[in-house]
Amino acid sequence: MSERIAEGSEEVLRISRRVEIHTLEGADAETDRCLDAALRDRSSAAQAALDSFLCPHAIAVVGASADPNTIAGLLFGNLVESHFGGVVLPVNKKHPTVQGIAAYPDLASCPVVPDLVIVCVPAPAVPGVVAQAGALGVKAVCVISAGFAETGADGAALQASLVQEAVAGGVRLVGPNCTGILSGTADARFNATFSRAVPPPGRTSLLSQSGAIGLAVLEAAEVRGLGIGGFVSVGNSTDVTSNDLLLYWGQDPATDLILLYLEEIQDPRWFIRIARWVGRRVPIVAVKAGRTQAGCRAAASHTAALSGGEVAVDALLHQAGVIRAESIEEMLDLATMLSSQRRFRGHRVAILTNGGGPGILAADACETNGLVVPELTEPTAARLRSLLPPEASVSNPVDMIASATAQQYGQAVRILGAASEIDALIVMFNTPLLTRSSDVADELIASRVELSRDVPLVTVFMNREGPPWALREAAIPSFAFPENAARALGRSVAWEGRRDRPAGRLLRPDVDAHRVGRLVAAAVSRASDGWLAAVDAQALLAAYGIAVARATYVRTPDEAEAAQVELGCTVVVKVAAAIHKSDVGGVRLGVTTPAAAADAVRTIRADLESAGIDAAASELLVQEQVESGQEMIVGVNHDPLLGSLVMVGLGGKLVEVLGDVAVRIAPLTDDDIEDMLQSLKSYRLLTGYRGAPALDVDALRQVLHRVSALVDDLPEIAEMDLNPVFVLEKGAVAADVRIRLADHSSSLS
Amino acid sequence: MSERIAEGSEEVLRISRRVEIHTLEGADAETDRCLDAALRDRSSAAQAALDSFLCPHAIAVVGASADPNTIAGLLFGNLVESHFGGVVLPVNKKHPTVQGIAAYPDLASCPVVPDLVIVCVPAPAVPGVVAQAGALGVKAVCVISAGFAETGADGAALQASLVQEAVAGGVRLVGPNCTGILSGTADARFNATFSRAVPPPGRTSLLSQSGAIGLAVLEAAEVRGLGIGGFVSVGNSTDVTSNDLLLYWGQDPATDLILLYLEEIQDPRWFIRIARWVGRRVPIVAVKAGRTQAGCRAAASHTAALSGGEVAVDALLHQAGVIRAESIEEMLDLATMLSSQRRFRGHRVAILTNGGGPGILAADACETNGLVVPELTEPTAARLRSLLPPEASVSNPVDMIASATAQQYGQAVRILGAASEIDALIVMFNTPLLTRSSDVADELIASRVELSRDVPLVTVFMNREGPPWALREAAIPSFAFPENAARALGRSVAWEGRRDRPAGRLLRPDVDAHRVGRLVAAAVSRASDGWLAAVDAQALLAAYGIAVARATYVRTPDEAEAAQVELGCTVVVKVAAAIHKSDVGGVRLGVTTPAAAADAVRTIRADLESAGIDAAASELLVQEQVESGQEMIVGVNHDPLLGSLVMVGLGGKLVEVLGDVAVRIAPLTDDDIEDMLQSLKSYRLLTGYRGAPALDVDALRQVLHRVSALVDDLPEIAEMDLNPVFVLEKGAVAADVRIRLADHSSSLS
Repeated sequence: MSERIAEGSEEVLRISRRVEIHTLEGADAETDRCLDAALRDRSSAAQAALDSFLCPHAIAVVGASADPNTIAGLLFGNLVESHFGGVVLPVNKKHPTVQGIAAYPDLASCPVVPDLVIVCVPAPAVPGVVAQAGALGVKAVCVISAGFAETGADGAALQASLVQEAVAGGVRLVGPNCTGILSGTADARFNATFSRAVPPPGRTSLLSQSGAIGLAVLEAAEVRGLGIGGFVSVGNSTDVTSNDLLLYWGQDPATDLILLYLEEIQDPRWFIRIARWVGRRVPIVAVKAGRTQAGCRAAASHTAALSGGEVAVDALLHQAGVIRAESIEEMLDLATMLSSQRRFRGHRVAILTNGGGPGILAADACETNGLVVPELTEPTAARLRSLLPPEASVSNPVDMIASATAQQYGQAVRILGAASEIDALIVMFNTPLLTRSSDVADELIASRVELSRDVPLVTVFMNREGPPWALREAAIPSFAFPENAARALGRSVAWEGRRDRPAGRLLRPDVDAHRVGRLVAAAVSRASDGWLAAVDAQALLAAYGIAVARATYVRTPDEAEAAQVELGCTVVVKVAAAIHKSDVGGVRLGVTTPAAAADAVRTIRADLESAGIDAAASELLVQEQVESGQEMIVGVNHDPLLGSLVMVGLGGKLVEVLGDVAVRIAPLTDDDIEDMLQSLKSYRLLTGYRGAPALDVDALRQVLHRVSALVDDLPEIAEMDLNPVFVLEKGAVAADVRIRLADHSSSLS
Repeated sequence: MSERIAEGSEEVLRISRRVEIHTLEGADAETDRCLDAALRDRSSAAQAALDSFLCPHAIAVVGASADPNTIAGLLFGNLVESHFGGVVLPVNKKHPTVQGIAAYPDLASCPVVPDLVIVCVPAPAVPGVVAQAGALGVKAVCVISAGFAETGADGAALQASLVQEAVAGGVRLVGPNCTGILSGTADARFNATFSRAVPPPGRTSLLSQSGAIGLAVLEAAEVRGLGIGGFVSVGNSTDVTSNDLLLYWGQDPATDLILLYLEEIQDPRWFIRIARWVGRRVPIVAVKAGRTQAGCRAAASHTAALSGGEVAVDALLHQAGVIRAESIEEMLDLATMLSSQRRFRGHRVAILTNGGGPGILAADACETNGLVVPELTEPTAARLRSLLPPEASVSNPVDMIASATAQQYGQAVRILGAASEIDALIVMFNTPLLTRSSDVADELIASRVELSRDVPLVTVFMNREGPPWALREAAIPSFAFPENAARALGRSVAWEGRRDRPAGRLLRPDVDAHRVGRLVAAAVSRASDGWLAAVDAQALLAAYGIAVARATYVRTPDEAEAAQVELGCTVVVKVAAAIHKSDVGGVRLGVTTPAAAADAVRTIRADLESAGIDAAASELLVQEQVESGQEMIVGVNHDPLLGSLVMVGLGGKLVEVLGDVAVRIAPLTDDDIEDMLQSLKSYRLLTGYRGAPALDVDALRQVLHRVSALVDDLPEIAEMDLNPVFVLEKGAVAADVRIRLADHSSSLS
């Protein structure tokens, strides 16, 4: 170790203290038990703050207008018409009545202090209104008005003064620049938005970071008959965020499902914990937009190239247990499914149809979406046979042919719903000729009652009228096409399979905190462009118990000869600098003699010299050549918002070509690691592929645990490639190591 | 070569004759010029046969019923109401009038001989009706009646007698077991189906192999306002098939777009040629159902494992130039796009919106679907800036904010449509507050006229009313969600990029036909379970000019020693049998000395003996070890319907794990080969990856041309793996070869 770093320097102390704390917290830091208390505290706070927004008794609308061609007029009209059980208070400086209701010149003049104030006045007047609200003791203000940070520097200054007034007055803010709040619960029903649509009341809640998308989803919900219990348009999210609303709805007994439209995930590390906690009880479906804005930065490591932008967001939502919808339509389909069905038994689907083609399409769509369409057992087939004409098909899909009656639909659903080989039913009703849709719907509703509650009954009415409305009222989900039904069912079943998974355990390796502190401080002082010297990178891995192939650093052909003799095996000679070595001719494999080792040093230097990068060849490495095992990659990337990402995948030179990798946000639990490994195509190569011996997957798991602990302790690590890591029959050993530290290490402590 | 095969044996002659003919036909056999004549002949025949079905002057309905609750009653009522310009003739044994129209007791009693007879009588009576029609000189009969081959053996017998009567009487048949024929062209408008929906007349034609899907698509077309020019439900396809209708519609000046719902592709090798030919003029969109029924057979070669079922169907549709829709909804979306837009300039899209969130979703969806959303040039931005308020965003997506007026929509479309950096426009109109949808639609229609005809204008109205009807009448496509718009646009642009590609050239290697004949005959006699002996497989490849690594066959350790000396390089020792050698320990790499070669023979035998498969080790191969280059795989699989499939991909042991392969149906043109190679992730590895030298891709192309010719000559080849094929800096050489012949070689000649 370098002696330039004093033992007691601030840097060393700071890092070793951090490692010590992590070690003391140990493996329990992220377990359910410990998180639970923190989440309960946050949840109570969210409830206290948000109750006034979502369950108010008196709502004032400042700027309420008589003109229905203005946003303020539209919103106030909606509120008046929404059968709100409490008091509505229009505030208007100029008019004594608004839309037939007595108005007040300002908030202070209102006969009662409102719980919730909706502000529609021009932006410059908003901070004053918030100040007045604060003075009156109002706790909740929703600012509709636009003209704040979204418009530029002046607006941002105005937004700052708005927030200042809110903080000073103890007021919580939704908005500004939002479309309002809607509630459709039994306790509080009101529409303080300028949506033209009023979806039926229900148990699904919706948060939107885009006003236009929020309104579009409300309109679509109305058309589909999807009940909405709560809707908040968060606008510029100055105060109340998606995390607050997740905590609120997660504890709300009136909420069964949460929908999110997100363009940005605020406080993402807490988002993961909150969503995972909430998701145990209430499924969360999110559309995350803005995919294409991230990514695209030039990456110096394989891991950074493969784990940027969208991949990181996917990892985050996956770890958070959130169902990511690929489109607004898929979010609506999932809402249709999950709002009407609480449990999903499994993935074996029976398809019931009155037309062959639609049955085949449904079967295709099931298989595409991870569901199976199993053969029926003979007892089930026999029951169907006694019900149906001989031309019908009693294999799965069950084709009752065009003559099928409503009664036959009802009976067939009872038979299939009771079959133990079946977990879910997709019932297709195609263009009705002789049988009426409404009769089929009535029979389905009657038979649904007799099904087990964890057997979903999903319908597809492929005709111009769409599904009979009675199905919606009976909470039987219906879709226009079999592909939508199968996709929503498949994703719901997959979610059910994950919902009860434990958070998993963090395994904490035993680390010498002081040694790590000294090591990092020394390494930083020697790093070049942030890249650690090979000797420091290897020492750091060693401190965390990660095996690296035996190596000696050499500067001359003579030293290389000696090193080969000392290692006494086939060696690799390569440049020590943290570059992509094989790309520049900086690696010689299969060196078996001392003379060949010396020669390798010379030819590498010559090659790098002719490439004009001879400086990179000042120090070289003579390293034991690992001859067996499977080459994998383990790596780290740092995202400014999400923190450290850990990657594992098929390694070697082709890692970026093949892209067979899995990425998760650190710290990794044992469950995360298992999930990552199983998702790799190359996992098969580790477990005894085509007669090869099974490899030591557990050693690879240990590398991942240790890398996770390492980056949790040292978020200064901006990039790391262990590539390849050879997974052997016994053990796993990294053969090449590249680590880059961020410039701004002190800001990350 | 074996002397057991007489020089003049029948087998030798048969094969060498076939190779000779292919050689004489040379490279021209499949070119446009040669195919064109054949396709024109078929096309004329199709037109002659199908005109009576699709442009009849008099239509008789045999079994026409007065009861609207029967299929015959429904169909006849539809026909009467459909404003058919010709004569409708109900034929009913019992009633003198049907639905108010004078009826005839039989076809012979009709005052004119109908061009088209629709048959709705019970199945057993149908052959008699067809016989009568034939006797009268009727050329076209559509049989609605069910109860034929789809019901079992008795029905199949009845269908056979139906077909027999048709052939005897010179009658062409649509059906039986179908839902009828509909025409919506200017020349002939009639609805001889039992569809309740009547889509508007139009220039899109639809064929369905499922009656229920056909009806569902007609209903959806009505709802979307998608004009239908022709619809044929082919039912059991006893005579008129999808190929006939493709040829008919392909030459029909009233058809701009063809939609297919297929469960089975009849005569697939002609389907490819016909669809490719037709597709130059008219886009073809197909849903191919029944994905999951194929595949799943146990495969003895990598190629067979990776090219079965769905992969083969994908290859077929791709080579045919057909746009494969993943769902009925996507087919409808593509129809909405392609029926309203004839040309697509390119993939650079401008997005115009009045809400930020929808713009972001649209941009995401564009990137996901192979489109780009480029920055606007400063002149374009400046024009937009002068049009829009300062809060608007004039980067792409262009967000005109919620206050956008209809006039601003019109002006912005003109500006973006004239910008040379833009190839297509997606215009989003979100929940209207102050601006009316219909006004926006009017402005879009007015501005559309000024756009270049190859710049598509695509709209998304994200609200409950959907798009104003006026847009449909103006042929401006509209979608409910940006994802649907972007997907349909992206696939259309991709199709446009391929539509004008030439069919490509077949390269025909110079092959000694007689030598091939003798070789195959000898190889067959020596094959074990169909697998060729290694010596025969290598000789066959050599006959087609495909390089194989130098090798000697050995039976003893002494012979191995001698072989290593003779080859004089590092060698591989491996079993010669056509098994997956490395899976069973049957390969020794890196053998550098004669003693090591002898030892390798001994240890391989010992390993195979302990595995109980020592018989496989009777003959071994000492082969030059290829030390450089990239390992690829080239293979062949035989599909009973499609013929020979050729595969290329990343080779080596991991081929099935990585699945980076491309598959096409033989024969391969140069265009097919280029398309296959470019679609591989691993293509990058061949062209100078990360500083490595560029490899001889042309040599790999040659291997593919030669393998294609080989299997075209020898369809007896059931499976072939060349794995690995080393692509070197100069040349390409196969290092391992396995070939299996089908048992039924004589049936394939």
